[in-house]
Amino acid sequence: MKCYVVESDQGIDAIQLRDRPEPEPGPGEVKIRMRAASLNYRDLGVASGGYLRNDTRPVIPLSDGAGEIVSVGSGVTCWQPGDRVSPIFVQDWLDGAPSDSILKSCLGGGVDGVLAEFIVVPATAVVAIPAELDFAAAATIPCAAVTAWHALFVSGNLQPGQTVLLLGTGGVSIFALQLAKMAGARTIITSSSDQKLELARKLGADLGVNYRNHPDWHQQVRTLTEGRGVDHVVEVGGPGTLERSLKSTAVGGSIHLIGVLDSPAAKVSPMLSVFNLLTVRGIYVGSRAMHQQTLNAIATNQIQPVIDRTFSFDQALDAYRYFASQQHVGKVVIEF
Amino acid sequence: MKCYVVESDQGIDAIQLRDRPEPEPGPGEVKIRMRAASLNYRDLGVASGGYLRNDTRPVIPLSDGAGEIVSVGSGVTCWQPGDRVSPIFVQDWLDGAPSDSILKSCLGGGVDGVLAEFIVVPATAVVAIPAELDFAAAATIPCAAVTAWHALFVSGNLQPGQTVLLLGTGGVSIFALQLAKMAGARTIITSSSDQKLELARKLGADLGVNYRNHPDWHQQVRTLTEGRGVDHVVEVGGPGTLERSLKSTAVGGSIHLIGVLDSPAAKVSPMLSVFNLLTVRGIYVGSRAMHQQTLNAIATNQIQPVIDRTFSFDQALDAYRYFASQQHVGKVVIEF
Amino acid sequence: MKCYVVESDQGIDAIQLRDRPEPEPGPGEVKIRMRAASLNYRDLGVASGGYLRNDTRPVIPLSDGAGEIVSVGSGVTCWQPGDRVSPIFVQDWLDGAPSDSILKSCLGGGVDGVLAEFIVVPATAVVAIPAELDFAAAATIPCAAVTAWHALFVSGNLQPGQTVLLLGTGGVSIFALQLAKMAGARTIITSSSDQKLELARKLGADLGVNYRNHPDWHQQVRTLTEGRGVDHVVEVGGPGTLERSLKSTAVGGSIHLIGVLDSPAAKVSPMLSVFNLLTVRGIYVGSRAMHQQTLNAIATNQIQPVIDRTFSFDQALDAYRYFASQQHVGKVVIEF
Amino acid sequence: MKCYVVESDQGIDAIQLRDRPEPEPGPGEVKIRMRAASLNYRDLGVASGGYLRNDTRPVIPLSDGAGEIVSVGSGVTCWQPGDRVSPIFVQDWLDGAPSDSILKSCLGGGVDGVLAEFIVVPATAVVAIPAELDFAAAATIPCAAVTAWHALFVSGNLQPGQTVLLLGTGGVSIFALQLAKMAGARTIITSSSDQKLELARKLGADLGVNYRNHPDWHQQVRTLTEGRGVDHVVEVGGPGTLERSLKSTAVGGSIHLIGVLDSPAAKVSPMLSVFNLLTVRGIYVGSRAMHQQTLNAIATNQIQPVIDRTFSFDQALDAYRYFASQQHVGKVVIEF
Repeated sequence: MKCYVVESDQGIDAIQLRDRPEPEPGPGEVKIRMRAASLNYRDLGVASGGYLRNDTRPVIPLSDGAGEIVSVGSGVTCWQPGDRVSPIFVQDWLDGAPSDSILKSCLGGGVDGVLAEFIVVPATAVVAIPAELDFAAAATIPCAAVTAWHALFVSGNLQPGQTVLLLGTGGVSIFALQLAKMAGARTIITSSSDQKLELARKLGADLGVNYRNHPDWHQQVRTLTEGRGVDHVVEVGGPGTLERSLKSTAVGGSIHLIGVLDSPAAKVSPMLSVFNLLTVRGIYVGSRAMHQQTLNAIATNQIQPVIDRTFSFDQALDAYRYFASQQHVGKVVIEF
Repeated sequence: MKCYVVESDQGIDAIQLRDRPEPEPGPGEVKIRMRAASLNYRDLGVASGGYLRNDTRPVIPLSDGAGEIVSVGSGVTCWQPGDRVSPIFVQDWLDGAPSDSILKSCLGGGVDGVLAEFIVVPATAVVAIPAELDFAAAATIPCAAVTAWHALFVSGNLQPGQTVLLLGTGGVSIFALQLAKMAGARTIITSSSDQKLELARKLGADLGVNYRNHPDWHQQVRTLTEGRGVDHVVEVGGPGTLERSLKSTAVGGSIHLIGVLDSPAAKVSPMLSVFNLLTVRGIYVGSRAMHQQTLNAIATNQIQPVIDRTFSFDQALDAYRYFASQQHVGKVVIEF
Repeated sequence: MKCYVVESDQGIDAIQLRDRPEPEPGPGEVKIRMRAASLNYRDLGVASGGYLRNDTRPVIPLSDGAGEIVSVGSGVTCWQPGDRVSPIFVQDWLDGAPSDSILKSCLGGGVDGVLAEFIVVPATAVVAIPAELDFAAAATIPCAAVTAWHALFVSGNLQPGQTVLLLGTGGVSIFALQLAKMAGARTIITSSSDQKLELARKLGADLGVNYRNHPDWHQQVRTLTEGRGVDHVVEVGGPGTLERSLKSTAVGGSIHLIGVLDSPAAKVSPMLSVFNLLTVRGIYVGSRAMHQQTLNAIATNQIQPVIDRTFSFDQALDAYRYFASQQHVGKVVIEF
Repeated sequence: MKCYVVESDQGIDAIQLRDRPEPEPGPGEVKIRMRAASLNYRDLGVASGGYLRNDTRPVIPLSDGAGEIVSVGSGVTCWQPGDRVSPIFVQDWLDGAPSDSILKSCLGGGVDGVLAEFIVVPATAVVAIPAELDFAAAATIPCAAVTAWHALFVSGNLQPGQTVLLLGTGGVSIFALQLAKMAGARTIITSSSDQKLELARKLGADLGVNYRNHPDWHQQVRTLTEGRGVDHVVEVGGPGTLERSLKSTAVGGSIHLIGVLDSPAAKVSPMLSVFNLLTVRGIYVGSRAMHQQTLNAIATNQIQPVIDRTFSFDQALDAYRYFASQQHVGKVVIEF
């Protein structure tokens, strides 16, 4: 079968297209024919060596995919050939609290990922795709949408009427926008481009702030909330924005900190958090249970994931390059 | 000023229209000119003696109202004449956990209520009405909507994609329907009337069950959820329905038990709760903080409370009688 | 190997001692030489047919045991021969929320239990025994102690200084007493015997109520709490006591409902729960994560499980009979 | 009456002893004869201008005190002369979530504090002192103990068997040590002095780390937890220690960030939090409800606050100076 392999830290151009024997499922495992995949910032880090969590090499990259089961190993009764499924991001994190060893099982980093014609994973490490979503849509969920879900509904316990601040228009932010609106929240989104802000408004954003025009954008956020600040920040921007996110947050509010590439240390005044009783919580994707909840909520509310552009399996490296150029709004997808 | 007074337990016809001196605000108090009020089942119990929690008599009835501040007592800086406000249901429950003594301060039962031209309450015991709601709409919120909010979002921590079962089309159930849809949930509603079910569907109900046609309606609920059961029941039906509500609920789900009139003891098998890890939680309206959250969420999402019919202050007892006849869907309002 | 088998619903005397081939571990499984087991009320129900959750027959009974790993199947890296372990009660419930299908995997009921010289279970379905506990002590934990832990710390979020009411001196109640004291709570315990109350006081109970002398024991509980009521009830008594437990509980408090044998329907007034904002939560043992937390807390605080009496493997049916006579305080153990 | 007044930002020596008219209680207020007070780091900041939250000047300093009610204003029924009480730190924070305006009402900073012979505060802003505590002991609770309680039991939901890391032997850390042990946790404490570590061990600390001998003390903490890290850090050390605290914490653990003096910005790598799903939560004292819970837990478990040294009212500035020299373990008290 054909698959892509990251063999070095030399970036996108060094990713190799390889021929490997088709894997076969052992006891308790399933074999999936992949039909779609999607890209996340982390995948650039895996390719360039800038992402340091439990990297192995060589590794088949990408965590996010969708496909159909072609065969199952002995003892597997919950799946059968033809089932439409997605593998979960952290293969060993089924429910409850993660641990250090569980977090070593991330697809496309700690273990082989989905940019291959076939993959074999434990039968426990996949979720069913609801009928409402096609393969491309389902392939956008495992990292970005589950991360946004974890932030808003597991960590954040978001309530209708609360205000959520979203930074930029990448995959996590756009999902967080859609999920927050689905849940009855008020949303403010930032971007460097009025055009992207306009797009975000069409997706339901209540208010937009162009941070190029307003470098002190936290003051805009304060103004837009009558001085009170927001209840939640989905903080994907990293150290460059953390201090402003803290200053944008209401007393008792939460900053949900999402992983980003190449983050240098941030300078943060702890007293901002103390005086305003702020919570800063590190969010790292989520469990199988969260993945199922996300799919269920998206299907129930007939949300369509925002797919910026689709590439074919053969054009996978072009997909990487387009994604790295940061022109997209929402997700970049590879269809097999 | 004119006000109605419950002086006995002889029911609606014994409620008296009285003339009393206008109350004036002492230190820390505000005086409100009432503009609208609404009815709840509890109000029938207060009139008939069937509602036993901390009743005093004589008492000005009704807990739910809206009006404007006409004057403030010494030391009050947070309100001024002209402010549009609602008094809160439990006057001493501002935030956090209630206590036995706090729960003695319920409007229109433990202390005088809102069916009067003017009322005086502590400055801490009112909330501002958002610009999106008129007086009639705001007067529907304090008991029914806050109870539904408490059940779904404080007790229930409702997440998008979860399924909520609503029993009947009374005030709490219709608010719970609107709030649950606002929050991205799936809803099933029961009624004895296909016409009311149709109305509920227009308000967003995903599925309806006519319990007259299906006396074993919990089996219908199971079928509609592919055998799994619902995540939440807003249980307003009392002992007659509790056993079926338990049987309608998924493993780990919650029954939010709302106060009802004249409830005799229910026979319930505890093992149903144990084997399915069910939570049954008594919900009694809510705090000022919950009232504010409810108003905020309703305003943010531009929800319009469902008002079945409106009566004038002079027709207040007709409003009671119409309400007691249970023909309504949603709320019955009195405008001053 | 020798094992006991429940083959009918004819009670203790019908349990058979059988010879079966030693089971061998398949891929992902471990084989354990059992060294100790303990009894729970549920085990009487399994033998008599009075316990209706997912019973299979014939079945090797008992859920609670401890032993050492003698061999592991292919792919098992986390355990090795000689490791001291306990199998978990619900074999498929590792962490997070349970489901209907997960709850079918209970040892000694849904699947074969531990009253056998050797057992084979999934490598994921065991926990390590801390050095502080011997096999007999570890064998008392899986059902009774984990249930008490789930009630107090997962469902109940018990805080130091809160008051916990315990009903009787059975296994769950005595563990709940020890765990509650370990966590800085105040405890009240009921019993029909002053002698057992004295024993409970030695284990840390702050107050005791003899319910034979005080049939209206909830009034005693109110008096002992200055009228306020308790924060938590660990309700093991079933329908006969539920109404009194509700009346013993403070506004906002919780009744943790534990499974009991042959419970007929209880008559309960829902309004008690509503007016006092009480939570009644069904508790059914717990997950592997809870089992680990329980062991960890017990080891850290050097708690010794209370073992009333120990029997040998050959005397297993005598152990059943002694247990059924309800003379014990704490746990009845079988050593192999 | 005599009282001390902070009139400038010139530090301890500039605090003035003044004579002022005795305050009298208005409607809804109580007058307290102060009997004891205690010092916190914040009080040094108030005196020196290094503490920037809502400072007013001139202000009577100190937040922590205890005394007896001498008279009550009109409408006050819950207190009477002779009642032993403590005023609460944040006068307007009774229960639930705080807000920006609530947080302006801190004693000895935003409003006049307790270093006066008599004070007048709202009747809602005091708590009763349990019989188990004398005035000096009660006066140590409002800031330090309530902060530790908020961190461990409200923010942290501490469970028995979890591990808590305490930094240094100041007031908050020593209370957190006592509270954590009361709740069945395992504790590790750091100090620059072996003598202080020895003292902490006598108070129940399980393990100690001398950070002078081990500048990379987080590595010691890792070793003492078998590589896993701790579940909770009570982080009082500020920016100098935050990075090491993060590195000391287990996957999913919490850092409870307590206010410190003159904290410059800390450099922190956000990815540490993300990859390990850490929560950093700002803790600012607590509500009246938390104050009551703390007193209740301390009384129930007969904990004695650790008082390092006691000064008389006339020696109040000596108490400040001794406190500023940081020789103390636990609390420094002023008795009137």
